[in-house]
Amino acid sequence: MNTACWVDGRPEQSLSTLDRGLHYGDGLFETLAVRDGHITMLQRHIERLREGCRRLSIPAPDVELLQLEVQAAAENCPRAVLKLIVTRGSGGRGYRPPAAPEPMRILLRYPWPEYPDSWRQEGVHLRVCATRLGRNSRLAGLKHLNRLEQILARMEWQDSDRIQEGLMLDEEGLIIEGTMTNVFISRTSSALATPDLQHCGVAGLMRAYILEQAEAAGLDVRVGSLSLVELLDAREIFLCNSLIGVWPVSAIDDRIYEIGPLTRRAQQWTDAVMTGVYG
Amino acid sequence: MNTACWVDGRPEQSLSTLDRGLHYGDGLFETLAVRDGHITMLQRHIERLREGCRRLSIPAPDVELLQLEVQAAAENCPRAVLKLIVTRGSGGRGYRPPAAPEPMRILLRYPWPEYPDSWRQEGVHLRVCATRLGRNSRLAGLKHLNRLEQILARMEWQDSDRIQEGLMLDEEGLIIEGTMTNVFISRTSSALATPDLQHCGVAGLMRAYILEQAEAAGLDVRVGSLSLVELLDAREIFLCNSLIGVWPVSAIDDRIYEIGPLTRRAQQWTDAVMTGVYG
Repeated sequence: MNTACWVDGRPEQSLSTLDRGLHYGDGLFETLAVRDGHITMLQRHIERLREGCRRLSIPAPDVELLQLEVQAAAENCPRAVLKLIVTRGSGGRGYRPPAAPEPMRILLRYPWPEYPDSWRQEGVHLRVCATRLGRNSRLAGLKHLNRLEQILARMEWQDSDRIQEGLMLDEEGLIIEGTMTNVFISRTSSALATPDLQHCGVAGLMRAYILEQAEAAGLDVRVGSLSLVELLDAREIFLCNSLIGVWPVSAIDDRIYEIGPLTRRAQQWTDAVMTGVYG
Repeated sequence: MNTACWVDGRPEQSLSTLDRGLHYGDGLFETLAVRDGHITMLQRHIERLREGCRRLSIPAPDVELLQLEVQAAAENCPRAVLKLIVTRGSGGRGYRPPAAPEPMRILLRYPWPEYPDSWRQEGVHLRVCATRLGRNSRLAGLKHLNRLEQILARMEWQDSDRIQEGLMLDEEGLIIEGTMTNVFISRTSSALATPDLQHCGVAGLMRAYILEQAEAAGLDVRVGSLSLVELLDAREIFLCNSLIGVWPVSAIDDRIYEIGPLTRRAQQWTDAVMTGVYG
C-alpha cells in the first residue's frame, strides 16, 4: 500500500508553497491508528487537535467534517496509520498570521508499521539522547509541527535493530519523553509516575488514557518532575503512544530492566482501547 | 507584483505533501533583499544556508546552483524580497530522516515591503513580548523552519501602526532578539552590545556585519548576556535585519529613547551594504 493523500478532502499530492505549515511549522498534527476500518480514540484525537488550534489561534476545522474525512480514509483498511495535519493555511511573508486565516487539512494514509512482536513482549532498548528539549510553556503539550528537536534526537543513532527509542531530557536535565513516545516509570507495584509536560513535551493520548485507567484502578499516580536518576532507579519503565500501545523498556544504555506487572497491566488497558473495545 | 515561486529551479506553486518541511519544519530559510537586480550579501546568505544544512545534516545544495537560481529570480527587479527555503525533502512517516535525503529548494519572490521612512528616521516602538524563546544550543543561531515562537510573539499585538516590533526574552529572562530582527544597545558613545545567541535566537547577517564594522571602527563591542534591565537602561537601542537595515528604537512600552550617534553610524554601515557598495 502506498501513501494516499487528501488536501481539504480532495485527493491531492501537493500543497501550496505559500502554506505557513511549510514556512514556519505553523500547524498541528495527529497520528491515528486504524484497525479493521476503526480508528482508535478518534474523538480524543479530534478534541486534542481542536484544543491545539485554540491554543495557537488557528480556526479549528469542523468536528463532523474531520470525522467524515478521517473515517472515509480508514474505510476498508485492515491496518493503517492516518496522519492528519492542520496548518494555518497560506499567508503573505512574515510571522504575523493573516487576519482571516484559511486553515488547510492534509490527511495522509500510510502502511501500518510492522514493529516486531518481541518489542512488545520482551521490551525495547533505549538510549539517552544528547539533544535536549527547549522549555516553552506556550508550546508545551502541543503536537505542533515544530519538530527539529525530535529529528536531531532521532539522528543520534542509526542501529534501529539494537536501539528502538531515544529518551529526551529538557534543558534543565529532567526526563520528558521519548522521541515519539511518552514514558512511565514504576517504583513499587502500586505506584506509577510520568513526567509533567508543563514546559515541553507532547501530551500523548495514550499517556492520558493510561493515567485515567491507573487512577480508576486506585494506583498511586504521580505526574511531576522526573530526574534521570529516578528513571534509571525505577523498577519498571514503559513507553506508550497511539500506534504502539505500550512497549516495556528492557534496557537503557547498559542497564537492564525487568518487565513487571504494571507494564503488563498498562498493555492490557491499551490493548482494549486499540482493538476497539473503547474508542 | 504577485508572488512568484520556483521549486528546484522550475516555476511551480506547490510542493509534495510528503515534504519534511511541512511535516516537521525540517529545513532552513534565507530572506534576501533585491535592489536593481542586485542581491544584498548573497554570498553570506548562501554560506549561512550551507552552514545551517551542515548543522542539521541536510545535504547542502550546490553553491553555484543556488547563486544562479537566486540571481535569475532577482533579474530586472528594481526592488523585491526573495525567500529561499531548503527542506530535507520527502520522507516516510517518522522523525528519522531518509538514508539519502533529496533536499528541496523553494524560492519565492515577494513584493518589497514598503516600511514608512519615518521608522528609519524617527525610530520604531517596541513592546516586550510575553512569549519566550526556548533554549536549545543545538538549534541556536539557525534560521530554521520551526518558528511557532515568533508567530505567537507576533500575535501578541495587532496595532502595527503603533508598535513595529516585539522584543523576545528567553526562558531565563535574558534579551535575545526581536521577532524578526536582532537587537543592539549602546551605553556610551563608544560601546556596542548585542545578546549572544548560544542558547537561542537567529544569527542575523546584518548583526554579523554590524559587529564586524564596529570592531573595525575600534568600538568596544560586547556579545554576551543582556538583561531586560540593561536594555531598558541603555542610551541607544536599535534593531537590524537584511531587509530593514537598521531601525532606531524610539520607545519600549512607555520608555522613550533618543536616537544617538552609534545608531546613525550603524545605519551608514548597513546603507552601504544594502545599496550594493559591499555585497
